[in-house]
This record gives sequence, structure tokens and C-alpha cells, in this order.
Amino acid sequence: MTIPNSDSPLRVGVAGLGTVGAALARLLLTRSNELRAEGARLLMLTAVSARDASKDRGFDMSELTFHANADDLARDPEVDVVVELIGGDDGPAKTLVETALQEGKPVITANKALLAAHGLQLASAAERSNVPLLFEAAVAGGIPAIRALRDAVPGQKVTRVSGILNGTCNYILTRMEREGIAFDDVLTDAQRLGYAEADPTFDVDGFDTAHKLALLTSLAFGTEIEASDMYIEGIRAITPDDMEAARELGYRIKLLGVAQATETGIEQRVHPTMLPLESTLAQINGVLNAVAIDTDLLGEIVLSGPGAGGDATAASVIADLQDLARGLVPKPLRLPRGDLRPYQRARMRSHEGGYYVRLSVVDKPGAFAAIAQRMAEHGISLQSIVQRRKPTDTGPHTHQPVIIITHETMEQAVREAMDGIMTDGHVDATPQIIRIER
Amino acid sequence: MTIPNSDSPLRVGVAGLGTVGAALARLLLTRSNELRAEGARLLMLTAVSARDASKDRGFDMSELTFHANADDLARDPEVDVVVELIGGDDGPAKTLVETALQEGKPVITANKALLAAHGLQLASAAERSNVPLLFEAAVAGGIPAIRALRDAVPGQKVTRVSGILNGTCNYILTRMEREGIAFDDVLTDAQRLGYAEADPTFDVDGFDTAHKLALLTSLAFGTEIEASDMYIEGIRAITPDDMEAARELGYRIKLLGVAQATETGIEQRVHPTMLPLESTLAQINGVLNAVAIDTDLLGEIVLSGPGAGGDATAASVIADLQDLARGLVPKPLRLPRGDLRPYQRARMRSHEGGYYVRLSVVDKPGAFAAIAQRMAEHGISLQSIVQRRKPTDTGPHTHQPVIIITHETMEQAVREAMDGIMTDGHVDATPQIIRIER
Repeated sequence: MTIPNSDSPLRVGVAGLGTVGAALARLLLTRSNELRAEGARLLMLTAVSARDASKDRGFDMSELTFHANADDLARDPEVDVVVELIGGDDGPAKTLVETALQEGKPVITANKALLAAHGLQLASAAERSNVPLLFEAAVAGGIPAIRALRDAVPGQKVTRVSGILNGTCNYILTRMEREGIAFDDVLTDAQRLGYAEADPTFDVDGFDTAHKLALLTSLAFGTEIEASDMYIEGIRAITPDDMEAARELGYRIKLLGVAQATETGIEQRVHPTMLPLESTLAQINGVLNAVAIDTDLLGEIVLSGPGAGGDATAASVIADLQDLARGLVPKPLRLPRGDLRPYQRARMRSHEGGYYVRLSVVDKPGAFAAIAQRMAEHGISLQSIVQRRKPTDTGPHTHQPVIIITHETMEQAVREAMDGIMTDGHVDATPQIIRIER
Repeated sequence: MTIPNSDSPLRVGVAGLGTVGAALARLLLTRSNELRAEGARLLMLTAVSARDASKDRGFDMSELTFHANADDLARDPEVDVVVELIGGDDGPAKTLVETALQEGKPVITANKALLAAHGLQLASAAERSNVPLLFEAAVAGGIPAIRALRDAVPGQKVTRVSGILNGTCNYILTRMEREGIAFDDVLTDAQRLGYAEADPTFDVDGFDTAHKLALLTSLAFGTEIEASDMYIEGIRAITPDDMEAARELGYRIKLLGVAQATETGIEQRVHPTMLPLESTLAQINGVLNAVAIDTDLLGEIVLSGPGAGGDATAASVIADLQDLARGLVPKPLRLPRGDLRPYQRARMRSHEGGYYVRLSVVDKPGAFAAIAQRMAEHGISLQSIVQRRKPTDTGPHTHQPVIIITHETMEQAVREAMDGIMTDGHVDATPQIIRIER
């Protein structure tokens, strides 16, 4: 990277003019003076790229170069830095970023899918060209979480990083809890309101959270990005019964991404959790996101705020642009590519924690005792075990709901106890298991 | 400042070896390799200063230069950067910082009292010498709040910054709420446990919060630091009755520092508030701190974590040291001293918000009606008005507790209504007024 001349503007090319891209372009065009950080170069939008040149996006494109092909934007001599907001873990987004880095141009991206899949390779490419590859906007929208891990905790021993990283899931869970309605019904409504995609798999099955978590893990632990080798469980199986039990027990159900150092490696896991109502993360409702960072020196710090939205996400892109305009050249993943340690996965079966288990127990003598016996023989100590049928529900039944809360135990023991209970024939449905987090 | 040679260590001198200073020295001595940020100079502790050279502080001072006079540490040619942890808004701390800046050495300080009183003058001195003056540790201990305001939100329009900034107050309020005991009793216990000073005025009367708020205000709004011209009210007047009413009404009482842009200027205010139980700040309990930043682009982001403690505060000093070791030279108050606008105070009497009012009403016919009439004639619309005597309390009474919650109104109207109610002779004690915050 050539030494920036602090008098010349930093010329910005934006590829992808969806909600975030259009918000970013509007901000760069309408408040460039305010956005000029102290002692930094002016940010000047010079070029954009999108599928459709003619669509009205609420800003004047007449003074900008329009590139039908995003790669041409990367090669445009009037573009100093490329902002990739196309999306997708491959295809045009990947080609654009690669081209820009080859051209020796800094890249800013909000594309967690791309980074989760190809982040190591792209970080190497950035290093070879000695240009920054920044991605504050890729995780938790407007929250400065990447920056906190990169700048505020180096040298501390991070023990755990966790977060509510997907606004769609958090919105659905919040509505399920408040309105007592089923997942499918909230999902349909969320799709109608634009809070969920037509194909919601990516969000509700936990993959988007997994991509973001993989980036946080790498920054927090100095390890290679590994998004495919982790435990992932979405929120489809959560029922109104679970919501009701959670409320009665003093918990709130949240989809968390958690990366935790253990003796055998790093647990990277995405799954619904029972959070104590008094915890900070339990208060993060609706489309908000939050990231919690635990270190040996700080204990826990929590950053919360908007996880999505055009302006909020654009604000994170702008913070990265301001870093570039100040001449900062941070390493993409904090450490040089060659210093990142391989990711060593800790298996879920050795995960230790408390468990919520909801069983549909066949109503015959001895079932309760047999279940308690199975838990005991796997060394699982119970905090509570209750039959939860509602007082109003007085009719005849073939099965009863039973809710078990365990003390801290090992996942393998819980799984084996459940296998035993199923084999014994005392339950008529797969047990619902939700991990209790602090 | 001379261009740093990235191969040479950055030599650190620490003045003041209390809890934070000793923790910092231990960390610099025992994990200097881990604390070396990527691409940055090594941090090397070379000199310390304290009142007592011989006290055992848990680290080996034999390789360090000890300065009985802190000013000598600033002049030590083997010290490149001075860390001021002496404390106090004047005296040796101020002299040390001035001497270091005159010597052209960067300064890092955790001293909010000093910065609140003399921050503008010291920022000017730092600018004249073109060296950084950093103070992440001065506000909210280990939480990267200064950094967020400095690096993550420039160019956005900050509308409000608020926070739980004093761990002692938050600890006392949390215990009052949980245990139902009076302020004085918790204070005595907190003093015994070391959570409150022998002279608690500085904390419990809001002055420490005010100092920290003044720094946040300057960074957030680009204004001159003004810590003396603000509304300050501490927590001594909060009673168990208020705690009980808050719980019943769905609030939690917190001491907040709030800086808010209004049409007539900036409201800087420190006072107890009623926070809705479901707000993020309401969950920050015990000695934890939190800072909320509202901007036009982000909405609200909240950062929470440890507000004090040796290691946590030392971690913030280290983050500043790492910035220096990377060669960063941020302006102390984000903008150059000359670009800071004068602080224009908005008066509390024009503050708009909801109010909690607790009255001790003399028990005679017409009192209730007269009070409602006074509120009405000042245009105050009531959300609720209830007599709160406990069902168990059946004896004869000369007065009754009455709790009023107002809709949004102007402070002047509330004050005038209270004056009227007192003049009417319907109350036998000064009304308790607590502002409702969102």
C-alpha cells in the first residue's frame, strides 16, 4: 500500500446497492464533511456497482461511475478502496474481493458467509498485498464487536466469546415468548413483515450465527477460521411449552453462538439456550444483537445494539473507512495468517453445563421412578423434576409433560440417559433438550 | 513526538502503585510478550513512582528505577510514556502530567477528577507537544467506552450518552433493592467490605459520576469539558419505600449520568432514575458499569462490564499503551482543542420526561383532590396516582403515602406543582421526586 497523502480524498467504490449499500452511498454523498475523522482523509464516493443501474435508490448517481461488472469497480483507477456488499459466499462477491486485493486495494466487506468460507485465503491475499481487509459490519451490524476484539483485548486471555448474532431468530423467539404463539406462526408473520427471508433456513437453522461466530472465534482465540466443523442447532424445535416452562423457571430462551476454551480445544456451538432472566444477554430482545467477551483480566464485557438495518450496518462500514482514512493497517484477523493456530474442536459430548429436558412421559406406574433412575445411573444430579400439566387440564391422558433441570453435568451423560429413557419406552416423543447458559 | 522505531521497546513509567498501578506493573512484568500487539513495539516497564518504596506489591521492583518524586519519573530518559495513577484533581498528579507533556512524552491516565477539572488545559498541552493523552481507564473501568466514542461513532450525530458510571452507588442500590434495607445500613456494610470509601461523599453524592459524564459529553458532542455546571443529585435520599414502589411499578432505581442534546443546549445531569425493568441498563447490577450511546445512525448501543478493579482498569491502560505502541496519535478529546464548541447548558427546569413522585399526605378530607388539582393546573397528566399503605398496616395514621407517576411533562411544571402542594399544607415532608428514564 502506498503511503496515503493525507490531503487527497480516499476514493470509495461500493459494490452492491441493497439496503446497506444504498444507505452507505447516501451517507457518503450527503455528510462527507461530518464523516471526515480528525486527522484523516476525506471519504469520497466515486463509483458504484449493482445489477440494475436505473433503479431509484434515493441518491443521485449522476456524478458516480457505474460499473455493471463489479470487477471493473475493483480495477477502476479512481477507486482507492472497495466496499463489498454483494453478499454470498462465492461468485461475484469473492471474485470482486480477490480482484481488489490483487490490485493492492483495501477491502471492506459485510459478508460473513464469504469470510466464514474463504476468510483465511482472503486474509493471506490481503497480507501479500499489504492492504487491510476489514469487516466490522459482518458481525452484529452496528455494534463495534470486531474492533473490541481487535483493539481492546489483545494480550488478555479470552476464555469465552458468545452472542446473540441473528436478529431474525431473536425477533422470532421474542414474539414467541411474548405472544405465546408457535414458531411456524411467528415465522410466517416475520416473513410478511420482512424480518425473515422467504427461505429462512440460513437464519433459523443457525448457519448465519455460525458464520459470525467463526469470525469472532478466530479473533478471540487467534485460531484459523473454521465455520463448518462446529455444533449447530436452530430454533425450529422450540415450542410454546418450552417458552412457558422457561418463564416459570426464570429463564429466557435465546439462540446463542458460543466459543469457549476448554481443556480439549475450543467449543464452537450454536444452539438455543436457557439464559437466567437476570443476565444481560437475556434482555436483548427483538432484532437487537449482543456480543459478550470474557477475558481473564476483564471478566465479562457485553456490547449490545442494532444487529442489522441499513444505517447501522453502514455506520460500521464507515468506521472501517475512517480507520483506512487515518492510515491504519490492521491485520484482517488481528494476527498474521501464519501465526493463527489451527482450530482444535472440543466435542459437544464433553460439554459441561446445566440442562433443561422436557419429556413426554407415557402415563403408567413406575415411569417417573425409571426416569429418575436413568439420570442417577449416569451420575446426573437433578436440580428439579416436575410434572407440568396445567391445573385446568383435567381430562384423561396417555402421557404427561415432565420438565427436568439438571445441575452441571456432561453432555454425554445426558445423551446416554436419554437413550436409556427412550429404550425403556417411557416416553412417546424425542426429548427436548436445551442447554442452560449463564 | 519522534517517529517510533518499531524495533525498540516502548518504555513505560508508572506513577502511583495502588490497586490499579500494582496490577498494571505485574502484568507488564509477567506477560510483556503476550501484551505486544501485532505490528507494535514491545511494552517494557522501566520505572515506577510511589510514596513507599519498600511496600510489597506482589512484583519484583529490583530491575526498575524507583522515583520518590513522580516528576523525576516524567523526566527519566528511560521512560517514553508516563502512566499517571496517583489520583486527585490537582497536586502531584497534575504536576506529573504537565511535566510529562512538556517533556514531549505521551501520557495515559485513569484520573477522571483531574481531567474533569483540567482536561482542556492538559489537552492543549498535549497538542502543543504533539503527543497523545489517553484515558480509556478513567471512565467505566474495563469497558472500551472512550474508544467507542472516539473511533466507532465519528460523523454520526450523537443524541444522548448515558451510563451507570459509579460502582459504589450501583452496589448500594442493588443491595437496597434485593435486601430491602436502608441506604445508611448498606453504606456502612459497603465501607466494611471495601466497596465504599470512609468518606463516601465523592461517590454517593454523584460527583464521581459527574466527572466521568463530563468526559463522555465532550467526546460525544464535541464540546468543551464542563463538569461544574451540571445538575447533580446523589442517592442518599432513596428509601426502601421508593425501592418497593419501583418494584411494584416495574422499575429499577439506578444512578445515571445522562448527557442529552436538546433544543436549548446539552442537558448534563446526574441523578437517581426509575428505569423500566426490561431496559438493558436496568440489568447492570452490583459493581458493574455500563455506557449507552445513542446516535442517529445506530440507535442505541450499550457497553457493559467491570467498572473498577485492578486488572480490569489496568487492561484499559494496556489498551491505550498498545495504541501508542502501534504508533497511533489520537487527539485527546477526538477533535483539536480549538474545534471544541463551548458547552451550552440546558436548564433542568426545561427537562422533559416522566416523573415518579412520592408524597407523605396529611390525612384529612380533600387532600387527595387538592393534590390532583395542583397537578392539573400545571398541565401535568397523570399515568397513575395511588395510596400505597400496606394492607397489614391498619393502625390510625396522620399521613398516607401517595405515589404519582406522570406522563411526559416539563420539570418546571412538576416543581411548581410541588411548591403548590407544600403551600397548601397537604404534605408533611418534602416530596420525593425521581425522574423516569427509558
